[in-house]
Amino acid sequence: MKNYIKADEWKIIEEGFDPHLHKISESIFSLGNGRMGQRANFEEAYSGETLQGNYVAGVYYPDKTRVGWWKNGYPQYFAKVLNAANWVGIDVLLDGEQLDLAKCKVDGFYRELNMREGHLKRNFTATTASGKQVQVEAIRFCSMADDEAGAISYTLTPLNFSGEITLTPYIDGDVKNQDANYDEKFWDEVSKGTWADGGYVQMRTKKTGFEVATGMKVSVQINGQPVSINADAETKEKFISLTYSTQVQQGQSITLIKYAANLSSQNYAADQLVPNLQSTLNRVAAKGFDTMLAEQAAAWAQKWEHNDIVIEGDVAAQQAIRFNIFQLNQTYTGEDDRLNIGPKGFTGEKYGGSTYWDTEAYCVPFYLATADQQVTRNLLLYRYKQLGKAIENAQLLGFKNGAALYPMVTMDGTECHNEWEITFEEIHRNGAIAFAIFNYVRYTADEAYLADYGLEVLIAIARFWAQRVNWSEARQQYVMLGVTGPNEYENNINNNWYTSTMATWCMQYALDAAEKVRTAEPAKYQALIAKINFEEAKEIAQFSDIIEKMYFPYDEQLGVFLQQDGYLDKEQILVKDLPASERPINQKWSWDRILRSCFIKQADVLQGIYFFEDRYDIDTIRRNFDFYEPRTVHESSLSPCVHAILAAKLGDEKRAYEFYLRTSRLDLDDYNNDTEDGCHITSMAGTWMSVVEGFGGMRVKDGKLSFNPFLPEKWTSFSFNVGFRGTLIKLTVAKDGHSVKHLSGPDMNFSIGGQDVHLKAGSVIKIVKVKIPAPPPF
Amino acid sequence: MKNYIKADEWKIIEEGFDPHLHKISESIFSLGNGRMGQRANFEEAYSGETLQGNYVAGVYYPDKTRVGWWKNGYPQYFAKVLNAANWVGIDVLLDGEQLDLAKCKVDGFYRELNMREGHLKRNFTATTASGKQVQVEAIRFCSMADDEAGAISYTLTPLNFSGEITLTPYIDGDVKNQDANYDEKFWDEVSKGTWADGGYVQMRTKKTGFEVATGMKVSVQINGQPVSINADAETKEKFISLTYSTQVQQGQSITLIKYAANLSSQNYAADQLVPNLQSTLNRVAAKGFDTMLAEQAAAWAQKWEHNDIVIEGDVAAQQAIRFNIFQLNQTYTGEDDRLNIGPKGFTGEKYGGSTYWDTEAYCVPFYLATADQQVTRNLLLYRYKQLGKAIENAQLLGFKNGAALYPMVTMDGTECHNEWEITFEEIHRNGAIAFAIFNYVRYTADEAYLADYGLEVLIAIARFWAQRVNWSEARQQYVMLGVTGPNEYENNINNNWYTSTMATWCMQYALDAAEKVRTAEPAKYQALIAKINFEEAKEIAQFSDIIEKMYFPYDEQLGVFLQQDGYLDKEQILVKDLPASERPINQKWSWDRILRSCFIKQADVLQGIYFFEDRYDIDTIRRNFDFYEPRTVHESSLSPCVHAILAAKLGDEKRAYEFYLRTSRLDLDDYNNDTEDGCHITSMAGTWMSVVEGFGGMRVKDGKLSFNPFLPEKWTSFSFNVGFRGTLIKLTVAKDGHSVKHLSGPDMNFSIGGQDVHLKAGSVIKIVKVKIPAPPPF
Repeated sequence: MKNYIKADEWKIIEEGFDPHLHKISESIFSLGNGRMGQRANFEEAYSGETLQGNYVAGVYYPDKTRVGWWKNGYPQYFAKVLNAANWVGIDVLLDGEQLDLAKCKVDGFYRELNMREGHLKRNFTATTASGKQVQVEAIRFCSMADDEAGAISYTLTPLNFSGEITLTPYIDGDVKNQDANYDEKFWDEVSKGTWADGGYVQMRTKKTGFEVATGMKVSVQINGQPVSINADAETKEKFISLTYSTQVQQGQSITLIKYAANLSSQNYAADQLVPNLQSTLNRVAAKGFDTMLAEQAAAWAQKWEHNDIVIEGDVAAQQAIRFNIFQLNQTYTGEDDRLNIGPKGFTGEKYGGSTYWDTEAYCVPFYLATADQQVTRNLLLYRYKQLGKAIENAQLLGFKNGAALYPMVTMDGTECHNEWEITFEEIHRNGAIAFAIFNYVRYTADEAYLADYGLEVLIAIARFWAQRVNWSEARQQYVMLGVTGPNEYENNINNNWYTSTMATWCMQYALDAAEKVRTAEPAKYQALIAKINFEEAKEIAQFSDIIEKMYFPYDEQLGVFLQQDGYLDKEQILVKDLPASERPINQKWSWDRILRSCFIKQADVLQGIYFFEDRYDIDTIRRNFDFYEPRTVHESSLSPCVHAILAAKLGDEKRAYEFYLRTSRLDLDDYNNDTEDGCHITSMAGTWMSVVEGFGGMRVKDGKLSFNPFLPEKWTSFSFNVGFRGTLIKLTVAKDGHSVKHLSGPDMNFSIGGQDVHLKAGSVIKIVKVKIPAPPPF
Repeated sequence: MKNYIKADEWKIIEEGFDPHLHKISESIFSLGNGRMGQRANFEEAYSGETLQGNYVAGVYYPDKTRVGWWKNGYPQYFAKVLNAANWVGIDVLLDGEQLDLAKCKVDGFYRELNMREGHLKRNFTATTASGKQVQVEAIRFCSMADDEAGAISYTLTPLNFSGEITLTPYIDGDVKNQDANYDEKFWDEVSKGTWADGGYVQMRTKKTGFEVATGMKVSVQINGQPVSINADAETKEKFISLTYSTQVQQGQSITLIKYAANLSSQNYAADQLVPNLQSTLNRVAAKGFDTMLAEQAAAWAQKWEHNDIVIEGDVAAQQAIRFNIFQLNQTYTGEDDRLNIGPKGFTGEKYGGSTYWDTEAYCVPFYLATADQQVTRNLLLYRYKQLGKAIENAQLLGFKNGAALYPMVTMDGTECHNEWEITFEEIHRNGAIAFAIFNYVRYTADEAYLADYGLEVLIAIARFWAQRVNWSEARQQYVMLGVTGPNEYENNINNNWYTSTMATWCMQYALDAAEKVRTAEPAKYQALIAKINFEEAKEIAQFSDIIEKMYFPYDEQLGVFLQQDGYLDKEQILVKDLPASERPINQKWSWDRILRSCFIKQADVLQGIYFFEDRYDIDTIRRNFDFYEPRTVHESSLSPCVHAILAAKLGDEKRAYEFYLRTSRLDLDDYNNDTEDGCHITSMAGTWMSVVEGFGGMRVKDGKLSFNPFLPEKWTSFSFNVGFRGTLIKLTVAKDGHSVKHLSGPDMNFSIGGQDVHLKAGSVIKIVKVKIPAPPPF
């Protein structure tokens, strides 16, 4: 755990330069706009430790998998998020001496991620080996307003000398992925070129054939006044640069403005990339840096209007929650249904793939409440479009008749992970994809989605489950063998309660949705069942029979759902009795010991109870929480939020807050010593859920929002904005009572603390005491 | 399946050259002498498809493991059997044109592995592109009499021309492993040199630092008469050669004799390798090729005296069983307790490692009956010497107090496999190691071994099991969670009956052995328990408690031991109902489907019943056999022998013979399309077991051999030699009755068909009817 980020409500601040923290800061200070993003690499040369990273959404490379022993059916490829051309680089020479912070004395280093306005700023004074002292201020951003563009303003002032300053902005496509399996480079050069004030490199990915043109347009100012300096162009393989040399007097400042753009063949014909790149660069350069910066601030203001959470009385918490919301918005804007939310977003390479079940299980609730419903709809359409590949994936594993198994990790719908315990067995993800459809329709009431897209996916998923179970003659029930549940510390288990629960729920929801569509949209229904050859009578009977006769492990004596068959055969130790020296067990214990232990990596039975809490009475929820929580090590960043929400529901405000704390500053404080690889983007949605669904107690019930809020003891107040079916409101939870303010849209009915409220447009409602008497704490 | 090997009782014969079969033949015609070995690569250049392989026993390289996702505790390295310097090569030029069978018309190609005398012979006539015709005869062997040496006689006769023949014998250390994980070469050159009639290359393995000096000494004859030709020496990196050029008249023959030797730093100081290599070469060359060949035949005659099996009335079966025995003897001679039996012996690289549980479970019975007891004792000592590493291995996994887990795959005692399902979970191998000690003592009555070595291993293994089980509060019994049994088509299962049975047996045997040593060798016992800190009262009580309260899955209704918890939840399909198009399932099904199915890769419950058959009445054995056999796909070559032996015991002679057939010609007929990778050496011991323990019904009971033989219908008779406690006998089973002939050693008591017999030295006993009335067939 680190503690070097300065507390601030709206900014992430680093003061002083410590090379050992640089890779962590490169992750934390990352920029993105949903279309492209980058780690906070320095503009000038840096010979110290760094992980260079520039990413273009949706552009990936299928790297041949590396395995110990091949298992039949393994995916051939592991899709990598691609490190793409570096467009931030500006090489700096001071009378021929290179500026490199790894070789300078650095003073007054200040790095700031301005989350309110969406830009990164850096100031420092550097003294070179030869004693030359310069002051630098760099500001840059990935534009939300022009999402194929970014801009940098780089200002340098010689403090103790006058001399020749050489600035060489460049585009460098000669990059590689640190996580390449075979140390190969993934890009080939297509073309490159320079012109008087700019240049570009166009590259093509091997195998996948994506082309990306990355270009720049440059202008130079002295003391803020444009100057005309002839640039020397240089080109090398996959590389172009322009070199500006000029005499600068002591105390004068020279500023280089670098406009950059990334255009991808996903959006243009490959041979039209360069002309479009040039017009994009001309367009943004015509706006100018300051205008772009102002537009960026305005775009972010609009985001914050929809999704800000204000916490008073705890600056660190305020900073953390905004950081999480900021990163989620940098990663995914919902404007392109071909994109998704990678676990590291644009902050690192790790884990490959762009799409995990994290999207459906954790991110969907965030985007539903904080963005236009089109955003979530695009996430659903992403899966809809990949249905064919999910059916192929299931066929490869021996399934038939249109059964679909969505991949555990993917870029384009193809499974791209290569561990059998996950690839083949962690099939519960199929349930999350169905649940996201349910969640979307529940939240938005967009039932047309079911008829147009949802039902087709639901039936394909239900068919998978119907084939995946088998009839146990011994039990005279259906069983689900050989799965891995959300708790990845168990592999190849039988009758995982969560998976079996998801399976039967999926089949029931498919049946319900089919009935709904059959009634509401008979023509669409008939067209669909013809298209997918849905044998109504037979398949409905089959699903119903399985739902009726499914086996779910349960312990009568404890009154808890059993995570899987045989769970109680394990030695029952509690996490509190684990010596600190043995934690995290995933670093201290052998895999075999982890598998045999009763310890749970992340919510499993409790994940199911969270999804379907209305099915269970409060005592059942409490018994299961009391049994599983003490056995859960939370070694996934996706775990604590579910426990926080359930603890809040059970009235245990103290523990709800403790669980929240585990993830809210996960990256800012580098809790797990892994932030240097990138930030935990998807778990940030879980942090948001802890606040909104946990402390705010927000649910959708009977087509309305309901709240059951409490205020964490350490806070003076908190408030969050949430949109629901066209209305935007702000809930404020304070010591002296709560209020709900209407911000935009029509009137809204909701309930708070069990009390129904009608909120008129433009009004505020104050509620002095709203909390339902809490169940006794445990 | 192929069918190109000509049937012969003592020879493996290939007639005609088919390049598509060459890699298979390179495996089948492999040579070895326990110390070194090689694939049947051609002497002359060959530009066609080939897998070059020369191996030196015990010399290996720990190749950095390749995994999909690292699991804590994975071994860092996967030890590879090393392809070592090629000493067979003789480059041939005919008036400057290279002889290369891939570029010639080849006639009269004949390849013969003479198993009786232990050499490889090859004849052919080749016509080159330019029309030159030569006849070649090559004979070579790895000497059993001088196990660091080999020799080649290579005779060439120009048939349609007179001209310059250039012969270039060489030693080439610039080799690599086809299975290298990162395409690296594993050897560095130490030194090299040539002298008038020879030369050497000394190489050192990377990381492990083994040094091997490989050298040659050459002489040339014309028409059988020594001639003196000055050789041109050439050296390149890791390579030396001598070039002999001379005019040869049409019809004359030129013969090159190449004596070669491999000396390893395992046996000499590294700086003494070359002098010793030279004296070895001089010594064998002084004997001459013909003498060496005669000594080779004599050495093999002695082997066959001890272990031949004669089958009359079925040449293919005769050839096959001898091939299996021949390869086992080529692989391991038992003279060096640092060596073991690799799954491919000296016939290929595949699988890496030299030691699997195959050695203890399958090979020990073969060597016990067919070789001096010292051979098996050395196999046991190999494990004894690695006890320290087995204890370290267990410590890495979290075990304490001297608990030992022997590796699943190893070279030097370190685990060198990297699949968690096998590395961490296939712990039953620990039981096989204890069982081999039991089997050795039962066979030889060498109880001193227990006091000197065995007990220390047994207690360490028992300690492992005692820590590996856990008390299930739910069951009020001990359970064994998260294992993989011999049936590798199930992973991470609970309460595998075989593993749990082995575990409690090991603990009981450790207790029995401790009591035996305590009584018989009190001083040694006290010294041992002090050394290993054996807390007698406590540990004996612990072992006893576990033995008493262990849980074994059993189905009352079926009356069978259950392979594991939940086995009956699986869909119960029989192998006979599997379409042929879906077999072998390991090629046709995804891994996930295999894991979920009821199909069994190799004997699992039945392996346990085989080991401990005296514990079970014939009905119990029959019920289990009848239940598991129809579910077993035998996709391991180690499976059919166990079923053959049990079928024989149950009186089902027909099926016993069918199971035998599945492995007896596995490599000769390339059943599984994988012989090109090397032969299935360890399963060859299983074939031997099928004959001796199956058809011969041989067991050790109450310190005596017992037989219960039957004659497979297709055979006229069969006989095998078996040694027991210093007496060598031959059992012949024929249509008209059986006989036992004393061959050497003292008188012997044994039983046959339930009848006790006293066999006097030098006598033969004939038994007209010996078979116990068979239980009714099923």
